[in-house]
Amino acid sequence: MIIVMKSGVSQEQIDRVVRRLAEIGCEAHISVGQVRTVIGAIGDREIIQQQPWLAMPGVERAVPVLKPYKFVSREFQAEDTVIKVRNAQIGGGVFAPIAGPCAVETRDQLFETAEAVLDAGATILRGDAFKPRTSPFSFQGLAEDGLQLMAEAREEFGMPFVAEVLDPRDVDLVAGYADMLRIGTRNMANFALLSEVGRVHKPVQLKRGFTATIDEWLNAAEYIYKEGNHEVVLVERGIRTFETATRNTLDISAAPVIKHMSHLPVIIDPSHSSGRRHLVAPLARAAVAVGADGFIVDVHPAPETAQVDGDQALLPAEFAELMDQMRGLATALGVTI
Amino acid sequence: MIIVMKSGVSQEQIDRVVRRLAEIGCEAHISVGQVRTVIGAIGDREIIQQQPWLAMPGVERAVPVLKPYKFVSREFQAEDTVIKVRNAQIGGGVFAPIAGPCAVETRDQLFETAEAVLDAGATILRGDAFKPRTSPFSFQGLAEDGLQLMAEAREEFGMPFVAEVLDPRDVDLVAGYADMLRIGTRNMANFALLSEVGRVHKPVQLKRGFTATIDEWLNAAEYIYKEGNHEVVLVERGIRTFETATRNTLDISAAPVIKHMSHLPVIIDPSHSSGRRHLVAPLARAAVAVGADGFIVDVHPAPETAQVDGDQALLPAEFAELMDQMRGLATALGVTI
Amino acid sequence: MIIVMKSGVSQEQIDRVVRRLAEIGCEAHISVGQVRTVIGAIGDREIIQQQPWLAMPGVERAVPVLKPYKFVSREFQAEDTVIKVRNAQIGGGVFAPIAGPCAVETRDQLFETAEAVLDAGATILRGDAFKPRTSPFSFQGLAEDGLQLMAEAREEFGMPFVAEVLDPRDVDLVAGYADMLRIGTRNMANFALLSEVGRVHKPVQLKRGFTATIDEWLNAAEYIYKEGNHEVVLVERGIRTFETATRNTLDISAAPVIKHMSHLPVIIDPSHSSGRRHLVAPLARAAVAVGADGFIVDVHPAPETAQVDGDQALLPAEFAELMDQMRGLATALGVTI
Amino acid sequence: MIIVMKSGVSQEQIDRVVRRLAEIGCEAHISVGQVRTVIGAIGDREIIQQQPWLAMPGVERAVPVLKPYKFVSREFQAEDTVIKVRNAQIGGGVFAPIAGPCAVETRDQLFETAEAVLDAGATILRGDAFKPRTSPFSFQGLAEDGLQLMAEAREEFGMPFVAEVLDPRDVDLVAGYADMLRIGTRNMANFALLSEVGRVHKPVQLKRGFTATIDEWLNAAEYIYKEGNHEVVLVERGIRTFETATRNTLDISAAPVIKHMSHLPVIIDPSHSSGRRHLVAPLARAAVAVGADGFIVDVHPAPETAQVDGDQALLPAEFAELMDQMRGLATALGVTI
Repeated sequence: MIIVMKSGVSQEQIDRVVRRLAEIGCEAHISVGQVRTVIGAIGDREIIQQQPWLAMPGVERAVPVLKPYKFVSREFQAEDTVIKVRNAQIGGGVFAPIAGPCAVETRDQLFETAEAVLDAGATILRGDAFKPRTSPFSFQGLAEDGLQLMAEAREEFGMPFVAEVLDPRDVDLVAGYADMLRIGTRNMANFALLSEVGRVHKPVQLKRGFTATIDEWLNAAEYIYKEGNHEVVLVERGIRTFETATRNTLDISAAPVIKHMSHLPVIIDPSHSSGRRHLVAPLARAAVAVGADGFIVDVHPAPETAQVDGDQALLPAEFAELMDQMRGLATALGVTI
Repeated sequence: MIIVMKSGVSQEQIDRVVRRLAEIGCEAHISVGQVRTVIGAIGDREIIQQQPWLAMPGVERAVPVLKPYKFVSREFQAEDTVIKVRNAQIGGGVFAPIAGPCAVETRDQLFETAEAVLDAGATILRGDAFKPRTSPFSFQGLAEDGLQLMAEAREEFGMPFVAEVLDPRDVDLVAGYADMLRIGTRNMANFALLSEVGRVHKPVQLKRGFTATIDEWLNAAEYIYKEGNHEVVLVERGIRTFETATRNTLDISAAPVIKHMSHLPVIIDPSHSSGRRHLVAPLARAAVAVGADGFIVDVHPAPETAQVDGDQALLPAEFAELMDQMRGLATALGVTI
Repeated sequence: MIIVMKSGVSQEQIDRVVRRLAEIGCEAHISVGQVRTVIGAIGDREIIQQQPWLAMPGVERAVPVLKPYKFVSREFQAEDTVIKVRNAQIGGGVFAPIAGPCAVETRDQLFETAEAVLDAGATILRGDAFKPRTSPFSFQGLAEDGLQLMAEAREEFGMPFVAEVLDPRDVDLVAGYADMLRIGTRNMANFALLSEVGRVHKPVQLKRGFTATIDEWLNAAEYIYKEGNHEVVLVERGIRTFETATRNTLDISAAPVIKHMSHLPVIIDPSHSSGRRHLVAPLARAAVAVGADGFIVDVHPAPETAQVDGDQALLPAEFAELMDQMRGLATALGVTI
Repeated sequence: MIIVMKSGVSQEQIDRVVRRLAEIGCEAHISVGQVRTVIGAIGDREIIQQQPWLAMPGVERAVPVLKPYKFVSREFQAEDTVIKVRNAQIGGGVFAPIAGPCAVETRDQLFETAEAVLDAGATILRGDAFKPRTSPFSFQGLAEDGLQLMAEAREEFGMPFVAEVLDPRDVDLVAGYADMLRIGTRNMANFALLSEVGRVHKPVQLKRGFTATIDEWLNAAEYIYKEGNHEVVLVERGIRTFETATRNTLDISAAPVIKHMSHLPVIIDPSHSSGRRHLVAPLARAAVAVGADGFIVDVHPAPETAQVDGDQALLPAEFAELMDQMRGLATALGVTI
């Protein structure tokens, strides 16, 4: 932490900061510039970052030198984390196409979609049984019946599946069925849920909060990681900005930024970020070109009657066409798909 | 819902939308302009809003005419909701000063603060026992011990208290002690938690998600309301913007906007929005001038050693001085404080 | 500037930064922490801030210690700047009510408004002759004819007036008529215009760019100041955020933040920030309570037929009622209005 | 325009809106729903959009059905606009690689860079002579000397060049040298400059304001277009959001959105959006994958000593490597580069 003192700071105020550092077992490294005195705080990162430095007289700013997370950083682990979800892989030179319905609605809807995405080349099936809906009156998902149908689809088609968990009380239930859990964008900072998922031995997709910075997102991953679950995949799904032409603004730069800062895989959700069917394929192509480790795409046999997010679902034939384009790009980039 | 068709739309595409409306029991009202055909969808608001209109061929946009919430709107109830928290009141011409430590740390810290804010004129005590911390290594609160201390402070000073609840599994515990619950900014869209709190018979403070629109915030209030708990107070606490001079940007306009759209009381949190001690008093004064129904302010006897948010806590003497200013303004405005 | 090196940085990379600092006449102050090496750059602020530090191998971040502006800061001048506009004053304990039509349309419209706002207590008249319109087909203002009408209103009512200037080629023209110039939100970073206005001997209102940080805004003021024009008044008029209930989000905190960082007066524009008539009075009241030095409010005798921004204009009677409230608040706060 | 009336609206208020529409030569189409009355305003788009509908009693909202621009829309011209810049092409199946130094500093710096980018496959040279700098003390460019050097580089290497124009007074000067003009992000809403550039017979790059919506950006293009200059290329260069890991957030979705809404070509600036050298290549690859018509990339032979934006400049060798990747991707996508 670098503690920048106000101009005109008194020696007593400087001494007070130095004493406080000593009290918490840290050292002060004082640097006197032409206009400002700056105090470098050297010692335990956690302890230093929790102090209310701005509450001390004479302190203007406190600038952290270190990130708030540790285990998920590239510095802690230089080599890429590679995630296995049964027979599928995410990262390590493999681009993972994950696809399926946003929500499980019926057996027919699910099986028709699963067969289509498997044929087109998807390696993991998506399909949620619990849906967080902004309106209390909307369809909330089939709950355990939906998980049961997903498990049957897994048997039928040999594809592992990922499903969202919304409530800390449901973690064991969802983990009992699914091969991979997902924490949704509205729950990225639901620390009770992060902790529960951290205790499970299943890989996890952690969606970025649509208003979270990359640092906050990695910090949420740290929550899961420190509980013992190291199989975390980060999912970029758009952030809230002033632009309304898309549902959210896909922060495509987040993929190379994450690759630089963390060893965890990162995938892109072009469906929920854009919220528009005709934008999904261009953004999916950009995902592999930018170096992401996969995508997660909504597919539905009849989007017009979908109970959740039909506006953005691809038809099975559109998904198959996209996968053809993806294979061409992957070849040009030397990536396995 | 107004469904705007693309230019060059075919009659078949228009008919398809009209048929779909009929299928869901609604009427179509077609208006043909110079460039666009527009279809007004008339019928049940919930059913219409859940349809994926953009997934239909020829549809360019779907513009909701009605808000997604109903019970918390001014249209549903014209007169202001007034909340009683034991002997204190929020709304109905009464400005409620709520103050206390951000987190309960020790008996001495709590009691010293409680006595000071009571003497200065606060009517409700704040002090949290469960803290949602962005770092998994930070102080997480005293849990039930903290609630017990708050209950003792209530006995000692005769002030009701408000405390945050983070986890749906803790709602009964917190409601067993506190006079008023609070849902924090990170949990505004935690629908599992909203539902649980909706089943409790205690007033609730619902903080605005720092990335939520006013419509989403009112919709979260609707979640609580429709479960049967009608005593909801909205707390504006700043939104995330590009500006970094303050922790968040206090959206002061939200107070008069809410007064226009909803019958629920709205209060301002100048402490967490600004994150800086020297900004708290000016923003607190603005709160009463803009027409809010109260404020919630952090006070701590020794901010430099506070375990949570010391950067923004007022000293007891600063709070007393602020309350003097508040009384002057309230008199000028004809408001009781 | 504090230069934070990557973990695993080589001695050669550190030496390279130190050599570069020596080349530009600055000193290096090296601090070795447990995880990071940090280099404090000591010397001329301008020279250091212009170096592309991130382009050097081994550099992770470069954190400025000093602000980019100097002359407009509190450190450069401790006492408040007070602006005189003929017989009116802004700052120095005087709250300046500035009001009038958004745009000058006709002699009758202008004179009727001017008389009403003068009677209600406004001290400076607003009324623009050049309007920056987002549509090329909209009313662009009366140009010099509008300035001529404003000058006649000044004679008639004895009030100084402020008018916007849009184009560097028009600065002399506008300054030839108006008592105070205004640079609008879209031109806050129009450096050609800032420089021209800096050469004029008339006070200037500098509106905050609706997407500018406070630091960028003060930096724009620095542009004007360093050209020799020291009479700059900052106008907060809302920033662009994700919230759409108001036209922009009034950043009310900017007023006390500016007071802390700069000696320049700051006023609030509740009309253009909110874009809604019923929000103007509450926000205007908040302006004086938060410690701003004035407001600038749109008033129009017939908002329904106004050619610009009628949605937000107060009627003369509404403005008079607001001024009554303002006087009550000013008295309570010990401010002259 | 759709005019949504408040609930409880009176017949007199509805009649007043209808009368107002008649006064401005438009028709009203009234639709009475269960809760709201909605009035469709049918007639001249410009006239309707300029009315202050919210100023009329009983009006709750006014929702435009049509976009504010016309000539740059897909509806006005279905086929893609293709731009020729001497021997180079942008759009029409051709991806244009535009590269060079951010600012012209010296003859050697410029010629070394120009030769390198030409060899690597760039078709248009960039290099600015006028720089808009946030600090009044920073390097402002070589002005006409810089343009002269660019013209010499054009002779030497046979590449057309693009240069920024900042001031309406400089338009003729810059257009006298350059093959293509550029309007920078800070000037996107500088309507005086847009109008001047609209009168020139040279193609124009119009950068998106970093806080402009796509609609506002297309509207700025309309300003240029209606003056008679139809050769406008839109440049996405990142928008301001809460994320600080990158300088701005590249809104990659803007490219397919623009393709949908407009016939103008759109290119991506991965350098200024990210502000970080290591992010440029991934984002440049994403540009072609998402369907953009080109990119504009900063290249500098010695970024560490660059006078402007060295943090983000690629070395010539890095640019050559990127161009190899681009050719592979273009082939896979069936695009000419």
